[in-house]
Amino acid sequence: MTRLCRTFQTAPAAVPKENSAKYLESGLTAEGFEAPDWLVPDIEDGTAPEMKAEAIENTVDRLSTLAPSFGGEIWPRIEWAHDSKRLRKRGREQITTLVGQVGDQLDGIVVPKVGRLADVEAANRAVAEAEREHGYDDGSIEVAIIVETAAAVSDLHTIAQLGENDRLGAFVFGPVDYTADLGGRAMDNERPRWNGVLERLSNEASAGGIVAIGGPFDRLFDKRAGVTYYNAPGYADQIEHEARIGFDGSWSLHPKQTAQANRIHMPTADELDRAVGNIEQFNDAKRDGTGAVIINGQMVDEATYKNFANTVATVRAIDDTHPSQTGEYYDAALLDRTRAVEL
Amino acid sequence: MTRLCRTFQTAPAAVPKENSAKYLESGLTAEGFEAPDWLVPDIEDGTAPEMKAEAIENTVDRLSTLAPSFGGEIWPRIEWAHDSKRLRKRGREQITTLVGQVGDQLDGIVVPKVGRLADVEAANRAVAEAEREHGYDDGSIEVAIIVETAAAVSDLHTIAQLGENDRLGAFVFGPVDYTADLGGRAMDNERPRWNGVLERLSNEASAGGIVAIGGPFDRLFDKRAGVTYYNAPGYADQIEHEARIGFDGSWSLHPKQTAQANRIHMPTADELDRAVGNIEQFNDAKRDGTGAVIINGQMVDEATYKNFANTVATVRAIDDTHPSQTGEYYDAALLDRTRAVEL
Amino acid sequence: MTRLCRTFQTAPAAVPKENSAKYLESGLTAEGFEAPDWLVPDIEDGTAPEMKAEAIENTVDRLSTLAPSFGGEIWPRIEWAHDSKRLRKRGREQITTLVGQVGDQLDGIVVPKVGRLADVEAANRAVAEAEREHGYDDGSIEVAIIVETAAAVSDLHTIAQLGENDRLGAFVFGPVDYTADLGGRAMDNERPRWNGVLERLSNEASAGGIVAIGGPFDRLFDKRAGVTYYNAPGYADQIEHEARIGFDGSWSLHPKQTAQANRIHMPTADELDRAVGNIEQFNDAKRDGTGAVIINGQMVDEATYKNFANTVATVRAIDDTHPSQTGEYYDAALLDRTRAVEL
Repeated sequence: MTRLCRTFQTAPAAVPKENSAKYLESGLTAEGFEAPDWLVPDIEDGTAPEMKAEAIENTVDRLSTLAPSFGGEIWPRIEWAHDSKRLRKRGREQITTLVGQVGDQLDGIVVPKVGRLADVEAANRAVAEAEREHGYDDGSIEVAIIVETAAAVSDLHTIAQLGENDRLGAFVFGPVDYTADLGGRAMDNERPRWNGVLERLSNEASAGGIVAIGGPFDRLFDKRAGVTYYNAPGYADQIEHEARIGFDGSWSLHPKQTAQANRIHMPTADELDRAVGNIEQFNDAKRDGTGAVIINGQMVDEATYKNFANTVATVRAIDDTHPSQTGEYYDAALLDRTRAVEL
Repeated sequence: MTRLCRTFQTAPAAVPKENSAKYLESGLTAEGFEAPDWLVPDIEDGTAPEMKAEAIENTVDRLSTLAPSFGGEIWPRIEWAHDSKRLRKRGREQITTLVGQVGDQLDGIVVPKVGRLADVEAANRAVAEAEREHGYDDGSIEVAIIVETAAAVSDLHTIAQLGENDRLGAFVFGPVDYTADLGGRAMDNERPRWNGVLERLSNEASAGGIVAIGGPFDRLFDKRAGVTYYNAPGYADQIEHEARIGFDGSWSLHPKQTAQANRIHMPTADELDRAVGNIEQFNDAKRDGTGAVIINGQMVDEATYKNFANTVATVRAIDDTHPSQTGEYYDAALLDRTRAVEL
Repeated sequence: MTRLCRTFQTAPAAVPKENSAKYLESGLTAEGFEAPDWLVPDIEDGTAPEMKAEAIENTVDRLSTLAPSFGGEIWPRIEWAHDSKRLRKRGREQITTLVGQVGDQLDGIVVPKVGRLADVEAANRAVAEAEREHGYDDGSIEVAIIVETAAAVSDLHTIAQLGENDRLGAFVFGPVDYTADLGGRAMDNERPRWNGVLERLSNEASAGGIVAIGGPFDRLFDKRAGVTYYNAPGYADQIEHEARIGFDGSWSLHPKQTAQANRIHMPTADELDRAVGNIEQFNDAKRDGTGAVIINGQMVDEATYKNFANTVATVRAIDDTHPSQTGEYYDAALLDRTRAVEL
């Protein structure tokens, strides 16, 4: 079955509020389109330096109570940096604590600021050791890396190949740190979109059997004529681009973003209708003995077919786990054809 | 001499029509600007599964009779896939049959859906074995690969180096399968253009001494206000982009596309005039002892010179093989200067 | 301290004028914003073939007299080409002469038209041998390569790793030769911008601890309605793009370009104000125990912080060496805050 990771929502694991686990709790209990496919308790940059211990406590506590009824996957982001021995040591301690205390609730660990291949291998080993120490099967807890250094992008070709035999399960883009690492400048307050890097991330992820997830969109709010409003179009533009080039999911910093990205990473009703219709016509043509047919001026053959099959398979996966989402998004007749068409 | 491969025209080798070799015949007998530089009898995706045997028969038969008087190169596309043992076995059989029956007519074999380096090496070996078995010199039949999987793009750096010592002769981009392999989505019915991948293809092809050819443009027809028409501007946009970034040729699905791509991959009269004129002025300046001259506000030196020399060399190659095309495209005085200018 | 190389100004080392060292002299004596951070006496493509000997003489002579009072770095460009034994031999002779005669004045040697890794290693060895022969410490004279062949771009991943342990200090893009090497065509008289290659250059340079510098902009002048004028906007567009994606500096062919690029590679007053302001607010938030703060709708955390810190560090480096430039560019209160803010 197609794995769902439409949304990678980070939630600061401890914030200076009366309930320091406020965001963690709301992520774990969100409903409908606001429920992320992957929830990421953030012990790294989203948590202030002096609240790290409380962040770990909150994560252990809330995962114990709330994760069992959470429908998605759980991936805490720990501290790590290829150029800091101190942070790697802290990261190893955090991995051991999390695996030891709430290993049953974890799908994987998110490791930020990794460097060249050897550093990613070190992160993988740290998780393997924690698994062994606490009696989990080898490979039961995966690793997602944030690709946000020049060193990691430089070694992406070999890092991705870890996905073929190893626990590496996801690439997540980190454009803010990445831009800083390259010495880039946000002129007019806009960062480059790094189109070439995004294409490589998508390619290497697919080549290595790894999931690819976009970077955060931090211009959450915009302001015009004195009114501040949620920046829905800016976020949608980024997520649509990511979907187009084959990213499996997108980063979310807020439930509103999650509600948008969950929808954008679903095929539109038009796309689904075209995909189902073309596969139906293509299946008919195959039965009639024609290898390629022209439908609405577009040649459809075994190759184009695959794109349409991807679309149908994704909708089926969402339909299996979130029938309320597909029920809201598509009309009943189209859903019936989606479930029935032969792939 | 500059090798010509302005057009890579695929022709389904068997179609369910009274004359199942209709497209193959019309490709092999096309005249003027509709004659492709490379004709590709398509036994793969363009031919229906149950017509593969007939496609091979047609190819053997029509190449025997029509290829000797065809002016361009002949490159059949066989079946192959890096992730299918069954298809690789069929591909090997098809290679053996074609080399055995019409080896004298073949310039190369087009191998689709290749994966990592080892898979490309396997395809090369299959052709080498067929050559040996049927008494052809080693390397007399080349291989073109369709670059359309994440695995092939991932290994492009090493695959291209096969071009230096081996039979690998061309990279052809396959955007439809490529987009499907990455899980990309054609939102608004538009696929990404994969600019980063195109740049890498052009670069690695040049580094390995390999020819680079663009992917098919399948929106052959457009419709507006009830009228369906050939989509000439859409195709031209793609081919011009390919020419700009150093692709040697473009894929054609139709004689009208061939007629366009053959022209676009010729320098325009303006380009040729500027190239010849700048080389003439540059040669004069060199004789006068100036290393760099400013012509129309642009600095021209040894470096810019090379671009202009490429332009002249391409026109000379077309002029040698298709004087009717250059005669139609350029005025006589410019052609005379093109033939005369010292490179 | 941040190394300054905002401008890489080439000056033809011998031109057919009464004073054949005219441009070399004006580069070495330029003042204010027209003084380049790096001056490149050009013995290669900027100098006519029959003036190479005079170019070497001029370089030795003018560096001896003018370099000691020149504020920037000196990097002569010698002759070299990965595909020409003759040019590599000349390059070695030129390196030996320059290191022997004016080694004290040289920061490095610029080597053009390098090919694969082995060729860059050969260039590095040529400089190492000249150092040893003339009694300079190993590594005291660096190497910058012009990245302008398909072969160099193909091997960029391993070439950049020379930067970690070796004398390789800078990548400079050479788009004219690069386009010619790939067989690209300047349709409508525009070359491709090679965005994917630029991203890779910036990435690999950062990964290898190497400086990245953009390519020349040769449309120095434009003409409209009979009036020829300096093309300031065209150049500025290119330089701003380079700054955005993390290039450390830009190529200049003219003092006017140097004056522009020196300014563009300085943060704008707005950028600096925002950077200093955000760091001040972020430092306050850290003291108050908040890990991430929202300033003007943008989330600021440890990651975004780095971008702002880069901005401040660059201004401090310019302020240390060219206080007249910072004095002209920023108001006094902002400069005081820039000097004072805690990084």
